Amino acid sequence: MTGAEFLVDHLVKLGDTDVFGIPGGVVLDFLYELDRREDISAHLSFHEQCAGFAASGYAQLSGKLCVAYATKGPGITNLLTPVADAYSDGSPVLIVTAHSEKSIDKTVRFTGEQELDTVDIFKSVTKYAVRIDSAAAFPFEIKKACSIAIEGRKGPVLIDVLSSVFSENIPDIKSHESVMSYEPVSSTDYIIERLKTSRRPIFLIGDGIHQSAAENKIRELADKSNIPVLSSRCSEDVMPTSDMYFGYIGSHGIRCANFILSKADLIIALGNRLAFPINSASFKPIYENAEIIRIEYDESEAKRHIPNSRCFIENVADTINELLRRDICYTESDMWISICKRLKNELFESDINIPTHILSEAFKSIKDNVTIVNDVGNNEFWSSRAYIHAGISNRALYSKCFGALGCSLGKSIGAYYASKAPVLCVTGDQGLQLNSQELQFIGMHRLPIAILLLNNSSSGMIRDRERNRYGRVVHTTQGSGYGTPDFEKLAEAYGIEYTEYTAGVFTKIDSPILVEAMIDEDIALAPNIPKGNKCQNLAPELDKKLFDELDKL
Amino acid sequence: MTGAEFLVDHLVKLGDTDVFGIPGGVVLDFLYELDRREDISAHLSFHEQCAGFAASGYAQLSGKLCVAYATKGPGITNLLTPVADAYSDGSPVLIVTAHSEKSIDKTVRFTGEQELDTVDIFKSVTKYAVRIDSAAAFPFEIKKACSIAIEGRKGPVLIDVLSSVFSENIPDIKSHESVMSYEPVSSTDYIIERLKTSRRPIFLIGDGIHQSAAENKIRELADKSNIPVLSSRCSEDVMPTSDMYFGYIGSHGIRCANFILSKADLIIALGNRLAFPINSASFKPIYENAEIIRIEYDESEAKRHIPNSRCFIENVADTINELLRRDICYTESDMWISICKRLKNELFESDINIPTHILSEAFKSIKDNVTIVNDVGNNEFWSSRAYIHAGISNRALYSKCFGALGCSLGKSIGAYYASKAPVLCVTGDQGLQLNSQELQFIGMHRLPIAILLLNNSSSGMIRDRERNRYGRVVHTTQGSGYGTPDFEKLAEAYGIEYTEYTAGVFTKIDSPILVEAMIDEDIALAPNIPKGNKCQNLAPELDKKLFDELDKL
Repeated sequence: MTGAEFLVDHLVKLGDTDVFGIPGGVVLDFLYELDRREDISAHLSFHEQCAGFAASGYAQLSGKLCVAYATKGPGITNLLTPVADAYSDGSPVLIVTAHSEKSIDKTVRFTGEQELDTVDIFKSVTKYAVRIDSAAAFPFEIKKACSIAIEGRKGPVLIDVLSSVFSENIPDIKSHESVMSYEPVSSTDYIIERLKTSRRPIFLIGDGIHQSAAENKIRELADKSNIPVLSSRCSEDVMPTSDMYFGYIGSHGIRCANFILSKADLIIALGNRLAFPINSASFKPIYENAEIIRIEYDESEAKRHIPNSRCFIENVADTINELLRRDICYTESDMWISICKRLKNELFESDINIPTHILSEAFKSIKDNVTIVNDVGNNEFWSSRAYIHAGISNRALYSKCFGALGCSLGKSIGAYYASKAPVLCVTGDQGLQLNSQELQFIGMHRLPIAILLLNNSSSGMIRDRERNRYGRVVHTTQGSGYGTPDFEKLAEAYGIEYTEYTAGVFTKIDSPILVEAMIDEDIALAPNIPKGNKCQNLAPELDKKLFDELDKL
Repeated sequence: MTGAEFLVDHLVKLGDTDVFGIPGGVVLDFLYELDRREDISAHLSFHEQCAGFAASGYAQLSGKLCVAYATKGPGITNLLTPVADAYSDGSPVLIVTAHSEKSIDKTVRFTGEQELDTVDIFKSVTKYAVRIDSAAAFPFEIKKACSIAIEGRKGPVLIDVLSSVFSENIPDIKSHESVMSYEPVSSTDYIIERLKTSRRPIFLIGDGIHQSAAENKIRELADKSNIPVLSSRCSEDVMPTSDMYFGYIGSHGIRCANFILSKADLIIALGNRLAFPINSASFKPIYENAEIIRIEYDESEAKRHIPNSRCFIENVADTINELLRRDICYTESDMWISICKRLKNELFESDINIPTHILSEAFKSIKDNVTIVNDVGNNEFWSSRAYIHAGISNRALYSKCFGALGCSLGKSIGAYYASKAPVLCVTGDQGLQLNSQELQFIGMHRLPIAILLLNNSSSGMIRDRERNRYGRVVHTTQGSGYGTPDFEKLAEAYGIEYTEYTAGVFTKIDSPILVEAMIDEDIALAPNIPKGNKCQNLAPELDKKLFDELDKL
């Protein structure tokens, strides 16, 4: 069995059905082995950056390992951004790259043509990165790298293989043991104890629920315990249609969610990093009013200092199972839930503006099997808000933590292959430009991907920071150095259908289409929390009487 | 004086007139300081990758420091490829990026939103990378980083600045001493001694001649000493119109140059890395027949083992000056030069095929002030060969060592700003796709950049490797997974004129134009050296009688 055969066999065993990359000399043996197989497919990207995003889109949606590969030199350096993104968002991606030289001399500028110290470059943005220079080490390292990617808090790993190893025979190996171990559940006694005295507890959920596939269980737990659920933004798709879910919190949060957060006396964070701006004046009262219990899977996250909190390192699925088994409840649930419901009723229809209207209308029209893939910028905030208002339950992918502008085309491609179902890609005019070359992939393969371009002819988020800070704009609007192509002609160049947005255009997504919605370029991101305001007091501000009444509940 | 003011002042002092990047929150103070000044301009790119290539194109052409900047997170990771390219090719680029958190905790996955250990990622592909967290350290570090970039063997440096330092007042500092020092010239006695017994010496020149601005001096030295000059590929623009220059060597070299190399008994390498495949059977006889004297500026290069060679660490401009002063000559020059000239006469017209014909015709038609910027792939080899055949003297830029596919649009933008003169960008269909978003920059600013697209509808170089190795192709041709957009419509989307190639289309380049030349997709890269052949015996092979006759000269 050759190295390439072993690697591809192992990928198939782990359930990866698709691989993305661009061929180059040192990885051809790997590509040809993929090409030989019926049970896994290799796809050609047009920029390695998009191969990486395709792999992370696939991994995010399926929870399974997915591979991006690249040839040495510029091929591998082009993967840095999607790898850092996958690291930030915990996506299990295996990067396969290769080299020709048996060793790297770190004291010289060149060891050989296009040779790099790949491990040194990537080690701070991967869970594991290893250079493999012998067939003997190959099977152990492959298994180890893949295990690390998919166990514990997931994330990218990298193998940089001596090219000749792909074609060498590799030795038999014994099965490799898991390299991670986890704490047994120890949090439930503590949670049950704290719930005895809590009057207003909430569950604060995050992407960890998806990562541990505990979506149905958290929904059941909320129903049984009668404890309301809030989430971070980008996790609005965990239990969106549950009556016990009240939206996402944050500086651009759903107003009723921030209100509920402000009233909580016990926050049970399940698979949520508590990444909202904890050091701001707006959120400081939260830590003064509420005790926080954190269930964390990642020891490195557990080290973050969160005031007034206690952290347990556990798999959140185990925690929820144990809480379900213990049949938790608390005494004052009826009054607290009725307050939460009143806030939702009073505030739900507020805070939806033109871009959100369009998106909400679009989301209501799509089928349940469509994955929504978001880019970065104002468009993603609009998309999150519209998602809540549309009352849908589709999966929604983001570049949550790393904010990798331009990621959405690549992630859409990956999401399609992970689901074999249509994708609605929501992007902005700057993000779409950043990786527009990948329209070739989508157009050539006739993928059922609809791209909703919210074109405000500007780099909206940075423009607003510029306006606030300097009172004038540079490089972020038409006339200040920024500009956009003719997107209709761009779509045409790639053989992709184009239309301006109209209601119902997404009812059926069965081939590539670019749908452009022109957005007034002066629409800023709202609502948001003005500096110094409490988190529930977002601008545009509520009628003062109503605000005071709701604030006192 | 604020940090941003100090930095921009220093850049202006060093002669940088243009800066490329994409704004983001942490670098706005730097951008606004650039925007305030009359003597330096900031330009918006559409992908940071192209901002980096624009800076290196500017630096390669002008020899001056040029800046690319990026915001934290994905902004900076998008710069990795052009930075590695600038490191490989010795381009003095300053990367300016910034962060928000005062420290990085390497034991956790996140220190803060989009925060990275930038120095750790970039240190192996920069001459110097530094994190600057205080105003006190700022001026010293700026001067140090810029000095390192432009002194000795040039290359990229990176400063990752705590964002608030840009707006803080910085302390006065004393002038900073150069951090590098160089050997005095010690090679000339040795060279003169060896020339006494050499019958067939050559100068083998490389990019170091450009780097040390010694183009006129090497030409003078060749004329005075009567020693023929060969170069590496990508350095054919150093003294192209000199009678003493006989072309570039290598596995795809100019046939007469490889013949001359095979006959040399003394190779004096001036600013040339000796990067051709020295371990191959084809070039092994060179090291057995000739003694090699290396003049190197980079100590790390000097460590490379080159058989039968002696290395001196010197600035090549100093070496050449000293050789001129010493009035070197050798005794048997007439016979040797007449052999070289006969080889050139017999072989010059061979080995020019259709793509080379088109390029040669195009090159002959351009004005002297036009810079030729090349991408990566078969197209660059055709371009090099055509350059020699066209007999022109324009500057020609490449991604020489790192081979960064897709670099040419960015480098063309930089070359335009460095020269304020037209650019002819030669690229292929895969390279153009990789960074096609930058057509927006070129189209929007109406830059005088003509793009000559050699469209063979394939990834030609890898396709040929696949054919040789596997007998069939994957992902490199239409029908095997690769494809191209409609480039005419693509140009139109960006407001760029489009035409099919015709003779004379480049006579005047005063606005953006995409010129497409359709190349038969089956044309392989030729001539080349079949495995095992001597370096002078390229395929397609010469008539055996002629070969034997020339080989015996």
